[in-house]
Amino acid sequence: TQTLNLAVIPGDGIGQEVVPEGLKVLSAALAGSEVTVATTSFDLGAARWHRTGETLTDADLESLKTFDAILLGAVGDPSVPSGVLERGLLLRLRFELDQYVNLRPSLLYPGVPTPLAAPGAIDFVVVREGTEGLYAGNGGTVREGTPHEIATEVSVNTAFGVERVVRYAFAKAAARPAHHLTLVHKTNVLVNAGGLWKRTVDRIAQEYPQVRVDYSHVDAATIYMVTDPGRFDVIVTDNLFGDILTDEAGAITGGIGLAASGNINPEGAYPSMFEPVHGSAPDIAGRGLADPTATIASVALMLDHLGYAREARRVQDAISQDMAERAAGDGTDAGTSVLRRSTAAIGDAIAQRLG
Amino acid sequence: TQTLNLAVIPGDGIGQEVVPEGLKVLSAALAGSEVTVATTSFDLGAARWHRTGETLTDADLESLKTFDAILLGAVGDPSVPSGVLERGLLLRLRFELDQYVNLRPSLLYPGVPTPLAAPGAIDFVVVREGTEGLYAGNGGTVREGTPHEIATEVSVNTAFGVERVVRYAFAKAAARPAHHLTLVHKTNVLVNAGGLWKRTVDRIAQEYPQVRVDYSHVDAATIYMVTDPGRFDVIVTDNLFGDILTDEAGAITGGIGLAASGNINPEGAYPSMFEPVHGSAPDIAGRGLADPTATIASVALMLDHLGYAREARRVQDAISQDMAERAAGDGTDAGTSVLRRSTAAIGDAIAQRLG
Ligand SMILES: CC(C)[C@H](C(=O)O)[C@@H](O)C(=O)O
Ligand SMILES: CC(C)[C@H](C(=O)O)[C@@H](O)C(=O)O
Repeated sequence: TQTLNLAVIPGDGIGQEVVPEGLKVLSAALAGSEVTVATTSFDLGAARWHRTGETLTDADLESLKTFDAILLGAVGDPSVPSGVLERGLLLRLRFELDQYVNLRPSLLYPGVPTPLAAPGAIDFVVVREGTEGLYAGNGGTVREGTPHEIATEVSVNTAFGVERVVRYAFAKAAARPAHHLTLVHKTNVLVNAGGLWKRTVDRIAQEYPQVRVDYSHVDAATIYMVTDPGRFDVIVTDNLFGDILTDEAGAITGGIGLAASGNINPEGAYPSMFEPVHGSAPDIAGRGLADPTATIASVALMLDHLGYAREARRVQDAISQDMAERAAGDGTDAGTSVLRRSTAAIGDAIAQRLG
Repeated sequence: TQTLNLAVIPGDGIGQEVVPEGLKVLSAALAGSEVTVATTSFDLGAARWHRTGETLTDADLESLKTFDAILLGAVGDPSVPSGVLERGLLLRLRFELDQYVNLRPSLLYPGVPTPLAAPGAIDFVVVREGTEGLYAGNGGTVREGTPHEIATEVSVNTAFGVERVVRYAFAKAAARPAHHLTLVHKTNVLVNAGGLWKRTVDRIAQEYPQVRVDYSHVDAATIYMVTDPGRFDVIVTDNLFGDILTDEAGAITGGIGLAASGNINPEGAYPSMFEPVHGSAPDIAGRGLADPTATIASVALMLDHLGYAREARRVQDAISQDMAERAAGDGTDAGTSVLRRSTAAIGDAIAQRLG
């Protein structure tokens, strides 16, 4: 028997509620297999910061590096100054653990309410770069607070960093039925970074003649996302454009409450981290109202990353069935039916399907 | 009698078709007034570049500076390398003419098809900064084309540049019934630029106690744009976020084919430039299929900027009436009815309403 050593960061707000459901489903998915799950909880997030002033210590980081994977709920609270936990914890983890692929599937489950009148079939995945771009923290201010202040932010793009994420995206596209990769950037204005991205995609494309490659400016991509999302299969893009597009993608597929993500180090040099796209939602926290589906779908991504493809597919299928059941449960008011069950009830229902 | 000296840049593709309709409506709007319009056409865009290799000469620029305003159709063609006309012509004009306010209203006309199932009333305006940010052209490459390439793009934000556009946005918000201003940025990651924007908005807000101010991260804003666009009144944001949000805003209000914009130098030190948000659309060019409404709405923005508020309102009302008529014209198939008339027929119909 094998042990899956999992670090768990429930975090703040609804993070505390959705993570147990993810773990519940993880156990159910692996029940009867050779694999046992050993979880270690890490106290990170707003509460810890308020108590100790720490976001992520070097000791936390070294410890986290020893695990097979990390499951994160959500961190953040309005009481913490903007940027402290984002840069000191979330982004620090992505960077220190070299999670250069931020994988964000977008799937419109049948029957799930979407703001689009005619969504069509939506099933694409965004491969967002996770360790460069405007997220590199490479900016500053001069004469801050004076009428002569200058504030800069530098988008850093390296051939090394772009090529590895583009290669990952091509492999993804080659493995999916549609074999279609779209680069999203803003090459007509950001000619330097855009040039590097475009040249890299064009070059790697030679190795993947079976993949159809196209390009969209980021502004146009936000249009397609609402007028024709079915055109997308695999999108590869930089850190900031990926952040923006995946939130919009979440919105058209029923809300970021359903959107899963993996912060992946494909080579396994460091553990990968799986988290729902949504935040800590303090407004609904503590009331059992949060939908754990995004966390459970993130567990499916984790299983797949760890080599348990069959189990990953079973979890994903169970989610789809549960979503269909929920949608059917109230034909006249699909808009609210997905929220009609409690956090734990949804976790239970999905776990039971795996039983 | 006064003369309005107007520089006209029809440009490429459908730009050539929509500009005459804009001028037709401009004449109709000013007929019987003290104002006569004198137009001077400038040959700028892809055709000129192919012929002469020039995008915008210093002589062109000096000449353009002598006009009261500029009306631009669209520039660009797939045959021109990406970035050449954008940076050499469009952005150069915005920068050289210090058009620091890029004003982009979003209005869902009654009956116009939108991809949203339940759009509600949409009526907001984006005040996009036009002369700074990632558009400053302040990036570069090192070791280009090698495995050690580094490509950077620098977002440049100055207290001077941010304050003036924020002031404009507050004045706009104060003049609109809802008195509501939303700053859109990414303060939790782009802490330097975001800090400057946030501090500036907070400071100017003191002078506008009647304006309700809130803040949205850009990723969340793309969600609200499809789930609750009615929440927005005036949005103020930087150059790149404004580019992205206004395309999405165009999509939810019936397509960027209907979206108007003004590149404004509020003090009038240089002429302001008015242009539809759409591009040159070479695929439909030359066939009289382009909808000139965005250009005509840009003419309304121009009239307003030049101090002809009454005429601006009349043009805007005529557009609304025309849109309603077009929508009613085919109750069963509103999705295509807005395209059912020719470019010139739409211009005629709107001009006639002003007659
Ligand atoms: C919280 C924030 C730093 C983060 C990001 O911008 O990447 C979030 O929006 C996300 O998409 O995971
Ligand atoms: C053509 C391009 C340079 C331009 C921009 O990015 O500003 C366009 O997208 C716009 O929004 O006017």
